[in-house]
Parts: sequence; structure tokens; C-alpha cells
Amino acid sequence: MFQSAEIGHRINKTKYREAVPALRAALLEAQAKLFEDKSTPVLILISGEDGAGKRETIHVLYEWMDPRFLSTLAFEDPTDEERERPAMWRYWRALPPKGRIGIFAGSWYSDPIRRRIKGKLSQKDLDARAEQINRFEAMLVNEGALVLKFWIHLTKDAQQQRLEDLQNNPQTAWRVTRWNWKRLKTYDKLQDVAGHMLRLTDTAWAPWVVVEGTDEKYRSVRIGQVIAAALEARETVAKPEVTERRTDTAVPMLAGSPIAPFLRVVTDGRNVLSTLKLDMPMSDKAYKQELAQLQGRLSVLARDPRFKKLSLVLAFEGADAAGKGGAIRRISAALDARQFEIVPVAAPTEEERAQPHLWRFWRKLPRQGHISIFDRTWYGRVLVERVEGFCSEQDWQRAYSEINDFEHELVDYGVIVVKFWLQISQEEQLKRFKEREQIAFKRFKITQEDWRNREKWDAYQQAICDMVERTSTGEVPWTLVEANNKNYARIKILRTLCERLEEALGPINKA
Amino acid sequence: MFQSAEIGHRINKTKYREAVPALRAALLEAQAKLFEDKSTPVLILISGEDGAGKRETIHVLYEWMDPRFLSTLAFEDPTDEERERPAMWRYWRALPPKGRIGIFAGSWYSDPIRRRIKGKLSQKDLDARAEQINRFEAMLVNEGALVLKFWIHLTKDAQQQRLEDLQNNPQTAWRVTRWNWKRLKTYDKLQDVAGHMLRLTDTAWAPWVVVEGTDEKYRSVRIGQVIAAALEARETVAKPEVTERRTDTAVPMLAGSPIAPFLRVVTDGRNVLSTLKLDMPMSDKAYKQELAQLQGRLSVLARDPRFKKLSLVLAFEGADAAGKGGAIRRISAALDARQFEIVPVAAPTEEERAQPHLWRFWRKLPRQGHISIFDRTWYGRVLVERVEGFCSEQDWQRAYSEINDFEHELVDYGVIVVKFWLQISQEEQLKRFKEREQIAFKRFKITQEDWRNREKWDAYQQAICDMVERTSTGEVPWTLVEANNKNYARIKILRTLCERLEEALGPINKA
Repeated sequence: MFQSAEIGHRINKTKYREAVPALRAALLEAQAKLFEDKSTPVLILISGEDGAGKRETIHVLYEWMDPRFLSTLAFEDPTDEERERPAMWRYWRALPPKGRIGIFAGSWYSDPIRRRIKGKLSQKDLDARAEQINRFEAMLVNEGALVLKFWIHLTKDAQQQRLEDLQNNPQTAWRVTRWNWKRLKTYDKLQDVAGHMLRLTDTAWAPWVVVEGTDEKYRSVRIGQVIAAALEARETVAKPEVTERRTDTAVPMLAGSPIAPFLRVVTDGRNVLSTLKLDMPMSDKAYKQELAQLQGRLSVLARDPRFKKLSLVLAFEGADAAGKGGAIRRISAALDARQFEIVPVAAPTEEERAQPHLWRFWRKLPRQGHISIFDRTWYGRVLVERVEGFCSEQDWQRAYSEINDFEHELVDYGVIVVKFWLQISQEEQLKRFKEREQIAFKRFKITQEDWRNREKWDAYQQAICDMVERTSTGEVPWTLVEANNKNYARIKILRTLCERLEEALGPINKA
Repeated sequence: MFQSAEIGHRINKTKYREAVPALRAALLEAQAKLFEDKSTPVLILISGEDGAGKRETIHVLYEWMDPRFLSTLAFEDPTDEERERPAMWRYWRALPPKGRIGIFAGSWYSDPIRRRIKGKLSQKDLDARAEQINRFEAMLVNEGALVLKFWIHLTKDAQQQRLEDLQNNPQTAWRVTRWNWKRLKTYDKLQDVAGHMLRLTDTAWAPWVVVEGTDEKYRSVRIGQVIAAALEARETVAKPEVTERRTDTAVPMLAGSPIAPFLRVVTDGRNVLSTLKLDMPMSDKAYKQELAQLQGRLSVLARDPRFKKLSLVLAFEGADAAGKGGAIRRISAALDARQFEIVPVAAPTEEERAQPHLWRFWRKLPRQGHISIFDRTWYGRVLVERVEGFCSEQDWQRAYSEINDFEHELVDYGVIVVKFWLQISQEEQLKRFKEREQIAFKRFKITQEDWRNREKWDAYQQAICDMVERTSTGEVPWTLVEANNKNYARIKILRTLCERLEEALGPINKA
């Protein structure tokens, strides 16, 4: 959930000064309209790590918006009154009526996350709470509410830096307590728990907006822009919409959500791909050394007796000519041929088209002790099928959650799932295409279609960013591979794979 | 879930002979169309208690339909192949392709239900499985599948009778094993677990059809009719539909489902209301004696120290003049006025209209040790608002699950929820209306509106049946009260209340 909020989003003073007046005007206008219509209550949840800037964000919202129609609802320890009723009673009491905006500093998420970190709530209980929250929020939205959930995220370093800054400033030092420093120690645990909770509750009807908190100007503008866009979108949705439905009743797109248009607001133009340094150096000599060493390590891991109870699914995605095949060959070279299968994925067969889109991948799952290497994967639906229009928007939107469910089922059973995106620059791709045309035995690899795909480069980049944002989970993260240099890419892939296997097998006894 | 499948549904031989030819023709035609279109895979799950007639039902389906396009998938203990993959792998393997029908004898429900009964799965784990199943089925339906889930239900007596019949018939005696008799002993446990599981997985996209299994002819015709109606409905749904949507993304109606039109098939005209004997006898003398005794019992229970940690919500619903007020007064007479509040529910105020429909009931929840008595309730949305068109169909359809969630939250916290439906005959209502017009101090109770409501009697009966079917849960069952005789009704209500309180407080120490 947090990958795209760790890339150093920021905007400079000039841009900030340019953006704010228009943004304030948009917010005020939308708010006036909201009050006039009196048809929508708006709930804004401001959540996130300590010191990430929640307090400051609320302050900015009060400055930018009309405070007469805002209320802030802070939830401390429950009162007597509250303790004697079901847990959700306090939130029901605090719901804003239609036409008003309620800012929730702390919400129904705070208590389960806190208790899970303290170990007072089991994983299953947390999941049950997430499901209950999804139903609660679905009810609110069905009843007309707009629910905007922000999670302000800081990297561990950024959080430490921020606490230090606060402490060094005499005006803010009082806000830093021992408790804050203690929370920094549980940072990783919070990331795990919050990441999981956010993924489960990232629904079509109430999606999470994760905002990088380090740069105050970026944070404020980002949140303001999303609120303005969402309020504006609200006005246009009363229009009836023609949709093709399979049944007479709505089939939901469950958690792990589609991308609401108001989330597509661009604030500073940075994304997980644009911030990759694609030309990483690695000499042939260093490559050969490392390759031999890593292949040996992999070979030992695959023959480890503990692996017999596990299995491994490797997923390779990347633009044409990004080097998937070459990377796969460096892996398979280290394995026993009886143990692995390489599954090249092309257009589905007739038999496969008569089944749900994930069916053909379920067919190819490895038995225990075995390895399936997918050269292109179940992500086709949110990449090529999305960009080329081979499926409807609704189909690829719901695919994010179906894919997350699929991978979760695998991991839950004991399958190790490792997935790689190989990123090359447009120039590098062109160079490789031309090389392929020159080399006879590689010529079959380049077709007219490859040239056509190049034209949709930007659409693909957007699809990849969305894919990483929606499907890079704590259990199955995406590894983005800087692949302009094949040496570097292959080594990074092999090393990542070895590390993931070692992690799954537990501590290795060096014999 | 099972209340409406315990009322002795049956059809006689003549009606059966009349119904079958048309039904077979409809099934064959729908099946041919299905195969021609090749757009929809159909999954039919035949589940239910032992000896309820699952095997016979599948047999009948083969007789009535074209067996070339049917396949039956039975799942026994998993094979080696299956054990070495995630649990759902065996079902993915068995999915019927588009155009074909797969009958599942045993399914993804069997294993969690069985393991829960044996105590090998916790309640939370069961809930997690239910959630996983909902997502799996949503994916299937989104991918174009039609998922029909039948649960064949027998009362405990009927199950015993059926096992005896099978055993007494030399041709079928071999089918009855000690294992069957043992299952009879766990009948209550199965009802609890299956009832809970069915409620959680009764979704808009894959609703459960509970079929009373005692009468073979009823069972077969009922299942055949629902399949035929569902296949037929499938053909009409490709049409684009204009729907008013609040947001650009679909908001789901979650589990606890709307009533799919194909479930409204009428097979034998019986329902939970038509089978009530409304004129139950009770003399004034017997009434006075029992009343005094029960009021005493209730008074003691309400002052029990253990009640201080609990609270009580009483819900009264019934037609106009059904006697709700009188019954409530007989309860309040036994209670300390500081302990209870009577909440009369009329049309919502302006403030309440600016909030979700359940908000006004959340407001009135009792503190610990207290009692709220609702004279009309949160069921207004699925009764008067549905019938009078005060809300959209989508609104009342989703209300069933919202109400189930609401009551579950209360129970989960420790609130005892007891709900009564008071049923009177149309004649009795007319008599009472006329009496009220005669008696000065009761005249205010009868208005033009009451007379108008009478005209919608049938629509109300349908709404009540749907309400009982969708919201009578193991935790919070509906008590249907035969209320033509006020004496009888009041005593039944008081006795039910005392029993539920005693159950909740645990064993009483007689001092």
C-alpha cells in the first residue's frame, strides 16, 4: 500500500503559491454547493503514523474551507456513556448530517490497529473487524455519504527526522514525548498491521488515499486536491448511468479497489517508475562472479528438505524486450529440470476463454516441492487487456482484488510468491528492438505488434503504476527491477529470490 | 434461515403430474439456449442435511434435463494431487465451462461446516471462510457464471422419520449407516453452524434457496422451478439497464441478500404466516393467573445482578390494531420505570432524515442494565417503506443485511434482542377497527391511513414473509405471535421474553 508514498513526493514554494488560491476557491465552492443541496454527508478520515502531520493537515483544511460547516471529531478513550454501548455507538453519534463535513481525527480504524499492534487482537479478529468496517462504510455510502479516507505515510527515516525537527524547535518540542519515540520503535509493526488493514478496507465505495507526509506543501495540496475532486465528482453522479449488468442485482467489486477518478489527481508528477534509476552499473566481471555465487545459493535452497513442504511461484512481467526470458534462464539453469516448469503466457486458448480469467493460472500451480515460473502472468488483465481494451473497465478494475485474493490463497497455503516488474526506458527498448532485427535468431522475437505497443507507452506506464499501487502487498510485494543493464537486472532478481526463499525456509544451518 | 422451510410444504400427486411436463420442457429449452449461447457456466450446488434427499434430487435433475450437458462433481476426501495445492484448487479444476451445467454434490461449503461441527475450526475461522467464499462466488458471477445454491432442509423429526423409512425398506436399508444416526445426534449443532454459514453467504449475487425436503414431490418441483426461472432470467439480463448510481463505482449490497426474482417462484402457496393458527384459545381466568406469574418472573429477572452487565432491546412489529401497545403495557407493568424506556416509532424527524436510516435507533440504545422497548422498529424500511414506496427497491433490499449487521453488533456486545411479530387476521383487524370507532378514548387510534393500509394487505403479507426469511437468525429469531386472541398473545410474548432472559443470564440460583 505504501510503495508509491515513499518516492520523495514534494512540490516547491512557487508551485505551492500558484496552486493554493485555485484550490481554496474550488473547495469553498464545492462546500457551498454541498450545504445548499443537503443531500450528502461527507466524512473525512485523517489517519496515519505519529508525527506524520495529521494535526497540521486538519489545521490547513480549516484554513482553506468554511469552518462553519466543518466539525472535527476526535476520539480519545471512550467515556462511561460510550463504554456501556456497542463499540460503534460513539461513531454513530458523531456522524455529520447531510450537507456537512465531519473530519475524523481518529476513527473506527484506530482501535483495532492499536490493539493488534499490542497483540490484544488476533489476526483473524482484525480481519473480522475489517469486514465489519467495510459493511459499515458500504451502508454509509448507500445512505448517501461520501467517505474519504486519508493515510499520511512517512518512511521510518522521515519519521525519525520529523521527530528530531519537532524536538529541536523550542515552539514544538513539547509535542514530542517519550511515547512518540517508543512508537518509532514499533514502526515496522505498524506498517505491517496498517498495510494489511488498509488493503482489506480499500474498497470501491470508500478507497484509501495514501499520502506521503514528508513534504508539508505536497501533503496539504494533495489532500486538498483529492477532497476538491471528490466533492466535485459528487455533483455529477446524480446522472443516471447506463451500465451493462449480468444480473438484476448489483455484483459488488469487493475490497482491493478500483481506482476512483478523483484519486487520479496528479499533484507532482512523480511515480514509482519515474523515480527508478534505470541505468544501474555492473561490469561483466562482477556479474559473472555474482551470478555463479547466487546460482549456487539458489540451487542449495531449492534442494533444502524444508522446501519439500512448500512450493514456489515466480511471476515475471515487463515491457517487450525488457529481459524476462534471459532472467528466467539464469534461474532455471540453477534448478533440477524435474522440479520446475516454465509457463509462457500468451493469448488464452478457446478452452481457457470459457473459464474465469484466473482459471488458466490455477491449472499451472506447482505441487509441493515444485516451482512454476510464469513468463507473463495473471497481471495481463490489468496491463495488456486494460490498455488494449480487451476487457471492460469494470473487468480490470475488479481484477485487482481478485488477484490479491488469489495470491493470498497461495501464500496462505504455503506457496512462496515472488513477482518482478522489469522496467526499461523507451530508448533502451528501441535499441533492443533494432538489435533483434539485426540478429537472425532473435528476429522472431520482434513483430509489428511490438512496434504498436510502443505507441501506447504512456498508457502502459499508468497501468503499471496502478498495478503496483493496488497489488504490492506485505505478503507479496512487487520487486521493481531497473533493467536497462541486463547484468544488474539478473543479479537483482536472483538475489531477491534467494532472500525470499531464505526468509520462507527460516534460519539456514550452515553445515 | 430455516423458518420458512419448516411449515410442511407439499404438493399432491395430481398437481405434480400437472406441473412436471411444462417444467421439463422449460428446463430443456433453457438448457439448449444455454449451450447455444455459450456465454454462461451454471453451477448448481445441492447441499443439505443427511437423508434430506440430495441424491434423489440430482437423480431427478438428470431425468428432467439433457444429461449430455450436465456433469456431477462429487468431492470426497481430497486426493494426493489435491492435498498438495491450496484448498480451492480442486474446485477450480471442476468448474464447468460456459454453456454447461455443473452439479456440485458437496462443495466449498462442506468442509468448513463439517470442521466447525467437529470443533476443528473456530467461529472466527468459519467467518473468514464465509468471507472468502463470498469473494470467490462474486468473482465467478462477475466472470459470467450463474451460481444456484440449494440447501435441502428437514426438521429433526422429519429427518428421523426419513432414516426410519429408508431402513424399513429393504431396497434402501443399506444406505442407512450408524454414521447417519450419529449425524442425527448432531442435528442441532448442524442447524446452528449451517444456519450461520448460510446467512453469511446469502448474497445478492449468489443467494441461497432453502427447500423443505420432507415431501419429495414438492422438493423436486421447487428446485426444478427455481432452476428454470433462473436460467430464463439469465437470458434477459444482457440488456443494458439504466440505474441511478450515487458514485461512479458500484456500491455492493452485501451478504444477507436482496430477493432475486427467481426466488419468488410460488410452488405450493404456503408461507410462515398462512400456516399460523391465529385463533388460539385462552380463557380470561387462565390468562390472569399466568399473567401474574410471568410478570413476577420478569420482575425478578430484570433485577437480577447479572443483568447489570447486559441490556435488553425489545422490538414489536405487527399490523395496525394487532395489540402491540397492550402487550408492551403488560411488560412495562413488571418493570421499574427508571430502568426502561418505551420508544414509539413514527415517521422520521427532519434531523433523522439527514442521517442513515438506522441512526435514530442507535440513538435509543439502552445503557447496561437498561431496557429499550421499541413500538415499531428498524423494520419499517422493509415493511411500510417498502410497501408504500417511501424508499427505492434497492434501499429496502439492502436493508436486510444492514439490519442483520445492526442486530449482530448489539448481540456481540451483550445486548439481548427479542423481536415479536403480532399476526392477526383481516377479519379480526376489521372488528377491532370498528370497536375503536365506537369507544371514545380509543378513537384517536384509528385514522384514514389505517383504512388505507388495509387495502395493501397482500403486499404487507409478502413483505412480512420476506422479512422473516431474511432476518430470522440463530442469534435473533423472530417470534411470530398468533394474536387474534389478546390473552394468548400477551402470555406468549411474556413467556418468550422470560425464557430468552433466563437463557442469557445463565442458570438461575433459586434462593
